[in-house]
Amino acid sequence: MSHHLDTFPMPSGLIRSQVLGDQSIYTQLLEMMLHLQETLKDYFAQTQQSPVLEEQSHAQAIYEQEALLGRKMCQMVNLLQCGVTGGLGIQMPLPSLDSRGDVRGGQRTQSSRQLDQPVPQLSDFEAAFNGCDLSNRGVDISVLYHSSFQDYKAYQRDKYKDKNSGLINLGTSENKLCTDLITTRLLQSDMNCIEKNLLQYTDWRGHLFLREEVARFLTYYCKTPACLDPENVVVLNGCCSVFSALAMVLCDPGEAFLVPTPFYGGFTFTSRLYAKVELIPVHLESEITDVNTHPFQLTVDKLEQALFEARLQGKRVRGLMLTNPQNPLGDVYSRDSLKEYLEFAKRYNLHAIIDEIYMLSVFDKSVTFHSVLSMESLPDPNRTHVIWGTSKDFGISGFRFGALYTNNKEVAAAVSAFGYLHSTSGITQFKLFRLLQDREWIDKVYLPTNHFRLRETHKYVTKELQELEIPFLNRGSGLYVWINLKKYLFPCTFEEELLLHQRFLDNKLMLSRGKTYMCKEPGWFRLVFADKPTRLRVAMCRFSQTLGEQKQYLIRKQLEDAMKE
Amino acid sequence: MSHHLDTFPMPSGLIRSQVLGDQSIYTQLLEMMLHLQETLKDYFAQTQQSPVLEEQSHAQAIYEQEALLGRKMCQMVNLLQCGVTGGLGIQMPLPSLDSRGDVRGGQRTQSSRQLDQPVPQLSDFEAAFNGCDLSNRGVDISVLYHSSFQDYKAYQRDKYKDKNSGLINLGTSENKLCTDLITTRLLQSDMNCIEKNLLQYTDWRGHLFLREEVARFLTYYCKTPACLDPENVVVLNGCCSVFSALAMVLCDPGEAFLVPTPFYGGFTFTSRLYAKVELIPVHLESEITDVNTHPFQLTVDKLEQALFEARLQGKRVRGLMLTNPQNPLGDVYSRDSLKEYLEFAKRYNLHAIIDEIYMLSVFDKSVTFHSVLSMESLPDPNRTHVIWGTSKDFGISGFRFGALYTNNKEVAAAVSAFGYLHSTSGITQFKLFRLLQDREWIDKVYLPTNHFRLRETHKYVTKELQELEIPFLNRGSGLYVWINLKKYLFPCTFEEELLLHQRFLDNKLMLSRGKTYMCKEPGWFRLVFADKPTRLRVAMCRFSQTLGEQKQYLIRKQLEDAMKE
Repeated sequence: MSHHLDTFPMPSGLIRSQVLGDQSIYTQLLEMMLHLQETLKDYFAQTQQSPVLEEQSHAQAIYEQEALLGRKMCQMVNLLQCGVTGGLGIQMPLPSLDSRGDVRGGQRTQSSRQLDQPVPQLSDFEAAFNGCDLSNRGVDISVLYHSSFQDYKAYQRDKYKDKNSGLINLGTSENKLCTDLITTRLLQSDMNCIEKNLLQYTDWRGHLFLREEVARFLTYYCKTPACLDPENVVVLNGCCSVFSALAMVLCDPGEAFLVPTPFYGGFTFTSRLYAKVELIPVHLESEITDVNTHPFQLTVDKLEQALFEARLQGKRVRGLMLTNPQNPLGDVYSRDSLKEYLEFAKRYNLHAIIDEIYMLSVFDKSVTFHSVLSMESLPDPNRTHVIWGTSKDFGISGFRFGALYTNNKEVAAAVSAFGYLHSTSGITQFKLFRLLQDREWIDKVYLPTNHFRLRETHKYVTKELQELEIPFLNRGSGLYVWINLKKYLFPCTFEEELLLHQRFLDNKLMLSRGKTYMCKEPGWFRLVFADKPTRLRVAMCRFSQTLGEQKQYLIRKQLEDAMKE
Repeated sequence: MSHHLDTFPMPSGLIRSQVLGDQSIYTQLLEMMLHLQETLKDYFAQTQQSPVLEEQSHAQAIYEQEALLGRKMCQMVNLLQCGVTGGLGIQMPLPSLDSRGDVRGGQRTQSSRQLDQPVPQLSDFEAAFNGCDLSNRGVDISVLYHSSFQDYKAYQRDKYKDKNSGLINLGTSENKLCTDLITTRLLQSDMNCIEKNLLQYTDWRGHLFLREEVARFLTYYCKTPACLDPENVVVLNGCCSVFSALAMVLCDPGEAFLVPTPFYGGFTFTSRLYAKVELIPVHLESEITDVNTHPFQLTVDKLEQALFEARLQGKRVRGLMLTNPQNPLGDVYSRDSLKEYLEFAKRYNLHAIIDEIYMLSVFDKSVTFHSVLSMESLPDPNRTHVIWGTSKDFGISGFRFGALYTNNKEVAAAVSAFGYLHSTSGITQFKLFRLLQDREWIDKVYLPTNHFRLRETHKYVTKELQELEIPFLNRGSGLYVWINLKKYLFPCTFEEELLLHQRFLDNKLMLSRGKTYMCKEPGWFRLVFADKPTRLRVAMCRFSQTLGEQKQYLIRKQLEDAMKE
């Protein structure tokens, strides 16, 4: 994805001063232009290639790209309209849009119009605007969604099903290793309760029976010094809903959280959809140096530096967001480190949000997880908020369950408001209650089996990586490994990272790339290994094949470069 | 709830000019003061009375009120801080707050401080601010939630359970008449499927199998001219989530929808939580006049007038929101009326959102429901969006299911983004699929029984109302009657309406009052009759008793007034 301006005409200096009163609008427009250009390139590449998906899926994919183009167009037009005051005519040739916001026809007629037709006037822009039924916010959301979930949507249309053609998804963090155990447990008779209170509206914080069970469960597995209080638990439909609600009630729009990078990309989408909270990266480096005793080490110095820089820029930082065990690194924070981070938060009046969604997915017996809830005394109990859910540890992301635990009654009360639009169904709450309640099954059957299988698949994948001489972090927790593919990028840029990512997709393998985790260094990928061994073998085959192709591509490219010089 | 300023000192003109640079801040502050005063009065009334709830519940209620007071205080302090520029000292005596934002201690010390202590300076306000852990937005949300769901939360703490002490809820629109049928159906073996795709992340629009079934279901029950397309269906966790998502993608913040009043209060909460979309009331009147052939009649003239007035005020109206069958009126729009409303929307480039959540709850055989989806040709198909869910028609609000049907691919795509934070669990989606699929059971067992029971309970309640000589609308649809208690208010104001509402609550009966439906005329209440006959009898007893008490109160009040003259 190069950034050359060879497809679309750019506004000239004259037009700029006529049309756009504001430098920031100009900058935004430029960025949109660049994005539009990239999307157009992708689109044309895809329509020209032979269909790779099943016919209907392909048509759907094409349709979505067309719609996206239309929307991006609308967004630009809207922005331009902001810049137009007093009915100024616009001198800039732009493709016309039909009522669906379809850019294709416009693209085709553009060159001829540039030569022999009058330039479009404001009415054209109005027509384009009327062609878009979404608000500006709606266009933004649509663009954000498409760019965040493009691969995932392709996967939903074309899943691998024990034949060779579909996409294998090692990009989404799901544990598919214990579906057999979970299914068997969920089919037992104690699960199938349909009481009338489950059918009706609930306490928006979640049913009391479930909040009580969550409190007992976390008391036990987090080894808390005292019993947790169900009144401090709020249940919503997933951990991202909990994070979104926290961002809404702890921050005003434009305020910020500090988040060490690389971090889970879902936080970015979530913080943008509603809360409009900025996630300020605390950049960690892969190299071991004086300050870094291990790759991507988080230190209080780095937190402080990021905080000071943010404050210098006038940003209002309200909190620190940590994930422990970390995603995508797999790091498990020591008790001392954790305490340091929390003391840093207290020192600067920051809320600390700790996402412990992988707490039971520590499969290496030599690694010990410490929940913040296990601390004898929290540095700032009133500003420490813990998130946990069953999506990862029990491999049931489809259950839509996330829980907040906070000692802060005000925060718990405010987050409860979100139950109205983010609650999970009563029958699901009941099954979760039964599941969490069955401590014997969890301790004696589920966890040992799950950890064994995680170890086995981790062992298989890391052995493959070693054979391919690919560096990776070996941390013993989570459902993924963080791998270093820098040597396959030339030059080592995010553009090349994206191209390699696309090459994996072309080989029907979905990974997730470092850029979506806000990683500072190009070339890192997250590979999920918590998948069925048979599928994992096919996936690693595709992985190895893609890297083979990439190697050939690099050799050709370097040869060409050498010949140019 | 009077609005006398006898509890708190108000800022003097001097202070106002010193502290508050902006008239709008002053107005906001005044409003907040009035709210705070009311809340304080309620609070002191409650703490002085003997506990009416079980002890723990009572403590919880008290706690919540305390927390609310603290939050309101914080909100005022924040606002004041906005008005303070350049470190100006504040001359206005205000109660101090402890770190929990607790106003009680402050209230006690206030009078002495006014007499012999120095006035608090800015540092006091800073301390108060630091005592609140929520953002300004968080405080707003907390206050909005508490004021919207105060009664509902009381009901959750103290439900009637076949004994005389708990609250009976005829305020929340739920159908509790067919729990037996639904439970039996949901316990059948075909429901209990735990396939692995149900356990994992889904297509964010909802599982394809469910979207297909929703399309088939609506094709059949809405009598559509052609088969509906599953690609036009988006499934979220409840109809309010769908409405919220539509408001997000069709409007920018501050833009508006027209909504005829009285309308469902949940829309108000929903439009405020995220979308910040204004709901502009199209006020309907109860009196029959030249323009009104029946009470609360909606006409295009009224829609146009409301639209013009809004535009004159510079408001940007993006859509028209209708509920059909109407809530709380029970009106079922004729095909011709519906067409006129939709043509009005088209004429003014408005989106039309039609909420048909009560479409199968038309129990009077002489009334026919017409879905907008049944029209041979929609006036503006690309801007017509239909919402439906199973909460009301199947009495399973706890399932958290709402569906959007729209021909507009852009809108469907944009609304899909919200599946990430508003999806319902896979196992629930499967049960819904099975339920909607069982057309034979629905047509031969469920609907006939449900309609019969609705007719019977409606007959019982309306007979009671007639005996009490209380006017009501008799519409033959929905789960509620809209009743006129004006003659029990003296004077006929919303303050007196609230007092009567409180009297019902004191008698352990929850209704919902017209004010929360934005009704223009005080004195109307919505009474839900879709409840078990035994509970309904106790409820109507409490209803009649409350009105008896109210009558005594009115007589005393009128006597007192007469003696004053």
